[in-house]
Amino acid sequence: MLIDGLQCGYFNRDVFTMLKEGGFTCVTSTLGFWEGSQASLDAIGRWRRMARANADLMLIARTAADIEHAHETGRVAFLLGFQNSTLFDGRIDYVELFADLGVRVVQLTYNNQNDAGGSCYEASDSGLARFGRELIREMNNVGILVDLSHVGDRTTLDAIEFSEKPVAISHANAASLFPHKRNKSDRVLKALAEHGGVIGCATYRNITPENACQSVRGWCEMVARTVEIAGIDHVAIGTDEGHSNTQADLDWMRSGHWTRGVDYGAGSAARPGKVPKPEWLQRTSDLAKVRQGLLDVGFSESERDKILFGNWLRVYREVFR
Amino acid sequence: MLIDGLQCGYFNRDVFTMLKEGGFTCVTSTLGFWEGSQASLDAIGRWRRMARANADLMLIARTAADIEHAHETGRVAFLLGFQNSTLFDGRIDYVELFADLGVRVVQLTYNNQNDAGGSCYEASDSGLARFGRELIREMNNVGILVDLSHVGDRTTLDAIEFSEKPVAISHANAASLFPHKRNKSDRVLKALAEHGGVIGCATYRNITPENACQSVRGWCEMVARTVEIAGIDHVAIGTDEGHSNTQADLDWMRSGHWTRGVDYGAGSAARPGKVPKPEWLQRTSDLAKVRQGLLDVGFSESERDKILFGNWLRVYREVFR
Repeated sequence: MLIDGLQCGYFNRDVFTMLKEGGFTCVTSTLGFWEGSQASLDAIGRWRRMARANADLMLIARTAADIEHAHETGRVAFLLGFQNSTLFDGRIDYVELFADLGVRVVQLTYNNQNDAGGSCYEASDSGLARFGRELIREMNNVGILVDLSHVGDRTTLDAIEFSEKPVAISHANAASLFPHKRNKSDRVLKALAEHGGVIGCATYRNITPENACQSVRGWCEMVARTVEIAGIDHVAIGTDEGHSNTQADLDWMRSGHWTRGVDYGAGSAARPGKVPKPEWLQRTSDLAKVRQGLLDVGFSESERDKILFGNWLRVYREVFR
Repeated sequence: MLIDGLQCGYFNRDVFTMLKEGGFTCVTSTLGFWEGSQASLDAIGRWRRMARANADLMLIARTAADIEHAHETGRVAFLLGFQNSTLFDGRIDYVELFADLGVRVVQLTYNNQNDAGGSCYEASDSGLARFGRELIREMNNVGILVDLSHVGDRTTLDAIEFSEKPVAISHANAASLFPHKRNKSDRVLKALAEHGGVIGCATYRNITPENACQSVRGWCEMVARTVEIAGIDHVAIGTDEGHSNTQADLDWMRSGHWTRGVDYGAGSAARPGKVPKPEWLQRTSDLAKVRQGLLDVGFSESERDKILFGNWLRVYREVFR
């Protein structure tokens, strides 16, 4: 089994085939970044169409049992995820409605502060806001995993503390290994672990140490250092791999409809565009290399399996209804 | 058992109590007239809140088995209904999404022509339109009952013919008994019956013969005449009772956001406002009088039970997934 806590971009039959052949059991896909309820319903509709048309290759999972069923039938399970809570249009009632429609992972904030809390890119992080508390309580109740990847550190700590269910940092790295606003402090990672959560280690070049991009061994060593911080039960994979994203897609992710200016997201004026994929991960299916790679850096098979799928599965079992 | 194919207005604990005491087993409630997807999600959210707060009195039913369960536990089952297909925002994908959220009855058009077909108030009825065909096919597939009450005669006939599942005229009367644009020709009623559908006879004064408003016997005689037209397996009850509607609500139902002028709906310039309830039906719970009333006009007990609940239950079993 192999579970990836976050991928984005364009999914289609070729991607499903590639992921299946790459041995992926489950992938959380991103259905939205800035969108409100209507566009989010549209995205769910598109995924259902894809699921009907590609039922031999994949399915949309609602439970950990669905993921196991996908594995047993040789298909890839997808968890429907959103990288922002804007899909709820500020309405607490919508959390249950979207859960009913299959949404399983929602990030509280994306690159900007919103009614739920602060983002990692804001100069000042408000901490978890009033609506953010309501959201987490409701997400706990209806079985949606709280994702804190792009969320600011203070809001992240508040959310970890406030949530009665384990939460996730689905796609980020340790800031002590690669300093970046998107990466998480040791304090955050330890709090996450104390509350049963999981971080998915990323392969996205803008937030990943260069030696971890150069070789699978380098990336697996980064994972080993992350395990030293958060513990073997709390580290998993969340690549942040994007499928066929264009500059226009990157512009939408970063500038959305919120600025007339240019925003570089995890990039910078010096690194404004798409960054190259890691040398060892030219195709997403190359992620299978970490099966051996994690053993090579000293993990036992049972430890490796926690990283590959076991930790995610445990959290999914605890969170999904 | 007693099933009412349509009620509208404001539902609250007092109404639920009154309906329970009046012996209602199941009521289709109207959640929208002109609203798009977002306002329709809001309405579903409100109904779920009500269902949580009043679980001792009522539940939201998704299947005929849920209705029977409500009956066994002494509660009123509600089917979530919409009097227009505008909730789908023109998107075929939304039909399944709203079905997943519990929507079980949707009228193709309300008082105005839309992308699905023609309304009873249009000068010229287009017949079932391109999107209307798609809608019916999808509603058949996902288990939403097609309602044709306010739909124009030509579109109604097309829809009856096109649908592979039985359809409903949830709240109307026979035009041959009371000529009114909202009422249905004998031709329509016979076609409805031939395809296994059901008409719910109304008590709404604007579309009901005066003698049927004067006494329960008069109303039951109207039902008997409707049975002569459509047959005993195809006539049921759909009162069109409104709870606490104000003039402002009536204005919304009629003028919506589509006209700067005044529209009288089923009323007229001579009869512009709320009409009095039938003399024998001052409270909705008085509908229980028809249990005896239908026997008094000559129906056998088994015939009466088809009208009271059996015909609706049969259609619900055939249509709901």
